[in-house]
Amino acid sequence: MSNVYDKAHELKKAIAESEEFSALKSMHEQIEADEIAKKMLENFRNLQLELQQKQMQGIQITEEEAQKAQQQFELVQQHELISKLMEAEQRLSVIIGDINKIITEPLEEIYGNPEGQQ
Amino acid sequence: MSNVYDKAHELKKAIAESEEFSALKSMHEQIEADEIAKKMLENFRNLQLELQQKQMQGIQITEEEAQKAQQQFELVQQHELISKLMEAEQRLSVIIGDINKIITEPLEEIYGNPEGQQ
Ligand SMILES: [Ca+2]
Ligand SMILES: [Ca+2]
Repeated sequence: MSNVYDKAHELKKAIAESEEFSALKSMHEQIEADEIAKKMLENFRNLQLELQQKQMQGIQITEEEAQKAQQQFELVQQHELISKLMEAEQRLSVIIGDINKIITEPLEEIYGNPEGQQ
Repeated sequence: MSNVYDKAHELKKAIAESEEFSALKSMHEQIEADEIAKKMLENFRNLQLELQQKQMQGIQITEEEAQKAQQQFELVQQHELISKLMEAEQRLSVIIGDINKIITEPLEEIYGNPEGQQ
């Protein structure tokens, strides 16, 4: 057991020291220092959050809302800092997803793989 | 990066070798070998899944359904093997939750702690 927590802390350290994490942190700092980029990203995140909350409450998103979200996404993508931040987030998100797959493999041994890829 | 994956595999190995995981695996095998316990658990899981799916679709669960779920829960709890399995699942679930908190700490450094416990 203590070994599990030791290994979790070693993994945390490896994540914090990875190029991918450093890149994300650096992009985040650059955006924090750029008022326009910061505001654009904030607006976009708020809109995303609003739509997610609606979906979680089972409220149907209107075509107009979906279009607005798509337009905002295209707009923020054109900002180089934001576009790079999103790429960095995507790369780290793939890594975190891989980690979760790896560490839950022992549980698949018991419960089987829900995706049937055993 | 490769270090992240190495550490994730070391963590997986530590989980698979932990007492908590071995206990869960053993309880699961004992239930698989016991037709009555297996069937009771299966019925309970199916009912849980059904109610979860309703909630995810935003369908309100009736008082009758909630009562039935509670009754089934109390029933399966009285079966020693199932009750022990659920305890073992709970213990492993706490560990997995702790691991997730630990390995996402670097991200909190960037995005802040949503629970404000920074
Ligand atoms: Ca131990
Ligand atoms: Ca690397």
